[in-house]
Amino acid sequence: MKKSIPPHALLYPNPVLVVCTYDANGKANAATLAWGGIASSEPPAISIALQKPRYTYDALTSRKAFTVNLVPAKYAAEADYFGIASGRDADKFAVTGLTPVKSAVVDAPYIAEFPYALECEVIHALDLGRHTLFIGEVKGTVVEDGTEALWGGDIISWNAATREYFAQGTAVANAFEAGLRFVK
Amino acid sequence: MKKSIPPHALLYPNPVLVVCTYDANGKANAATLAWGGIASSEPPAISIALQKPRYTYDALTSRKAFTVNLVPAKYAAEADYFGIASGRDADKFAVTGLTPVKSAVVDAPYIAEFPYALECEVIHALDLGRHTLFIGEVKGTVVEDGTEALWGGDIISWNAATREYFAQGTAVANAFEAGLRFVK
Repeated sequence: MKKSIPPHALLYPNPVLVVCTYDANGKANAATLAWGGIASSEPPAISIALQKPRYTYDALTSRKAFTVNLVPAKYAAEADYFGIASGRDADKFAVTGLTPVKSAVVDAPYIAEFPYALECEVIHALDLGRHTLFIGEVKGTVVEDGTEALWGGDIISWNAATREYFAQGTAVANAFEAGLRFVK
Repeated sequence: MKKSIPPHALLYPNPVLVVCTYDANGKANAATLAWGGIASSEPPAISIALQKPRYTYDALTSRKAFTVNLVPAKYAAEADYFGIASGRDADKFAVTGLTPVKSAVVDAPYIAEFPYALECEVIHALDLGRHTLFIGEVKGTVVEDGTEALWGGDIISWNAATREYFAQGTAVANAFEAGLRFVK
C-alpha cells in the first residue's frame, strides 16, 4: 500500500560529480555535486545543479566553463573533501595533492589522477529557485589511455538515504534484451 | 597519460527512470529513460531528457505532467521493455500486467508495484537539439509504506558502457566523513 509523503527530489543512484573551475584569480578549484545528469546527445550536454552561495557558482557565471570528473573508489575521500570544503577558504588541490591540468578546449581544469573528464562550456543557466541548473555542452572528453572499456566499473555513486558512497554492484540484467520477452 | 576523444555526454552511474504519462486518449503509458537527474531542492525539481519522436514527448507537452518511478531489481525486465516498446504500438501496462494508478496531485499515473514515485508537473521545457530537457517540479511523492529507510538499496542503475542494469554494490566510504581527514 502506497502512502503520500511531502514532495522530495530523490532519485537513485546519484552520480558523484567533481566539478572543476578556475576562480577570478585563476586558482583551480574542485567541488563535488550529486545533482546532475545527461541532458542531450546532439550536441552532447549535461546538467549540474548548484546553489548560488557556492564558490563554484561565480566561476560558472563568469568563465562559463567547467569540467566534470568522475570518481574512482580509491579517491572517494578526496571527492568527499571537495564537497565539504569551500574554495573560498582552501586550496583544495594543494591540500589533497591532486593535479589540475588546463583543458585544451575549455577555460577550466580537470584532475590528472581521475580516469575520465568531460570538458564543458555553459550554454544555459536556468534559475529554478534555490538551485540554478547549468547546462554544459561537452566540447571535449579526456580519458586515461586504455581505460575506455572500463568506464563505469570503478566509478562510485552516492546514496542520499544512507549518506554513503557505493561501488557498482553486480549486473542484474542486460539492457535491450531482458525486456524482449514482453515483445510479441 | 590522458588522451582526448570526441565529446561524449557520458556519466556514471545513470539512473533507470520509468516515466509515466497519459496520452491524448487517457491511456496510461510508461517509458524508460536513463538521462535525467535532480535539478533543485526548493522547489524540489528533477530533469529528464527526451527526444521529440518519442511517444511520451506529446504527453509531456500537452498534459504537462508525469511521474518518475524507480525500478527495483525484480522489475528490471519490465523496465527494459518500457524502453524498447513504444506506447504508439502497445499497451505496455496490459502487456506487463503492471498497474497504473492515477496520481492524486498531477495528471499522470504511477506504477502500483514499484516502491517509489515522484509526481511531477512540467515547469520548463528546454530545447537543446536532439533532446528536450523537461524540468518537473515534484508536487508529491508516493512510497510503499515502510520502505522509506530502504530507499536506494534495491534500485537498479544503468551502465551505458556495458549495456547492463546493475544493483547497488557495497559502500566504500561515508559521505561528509571520509573527507574530514583533509580538513585542517
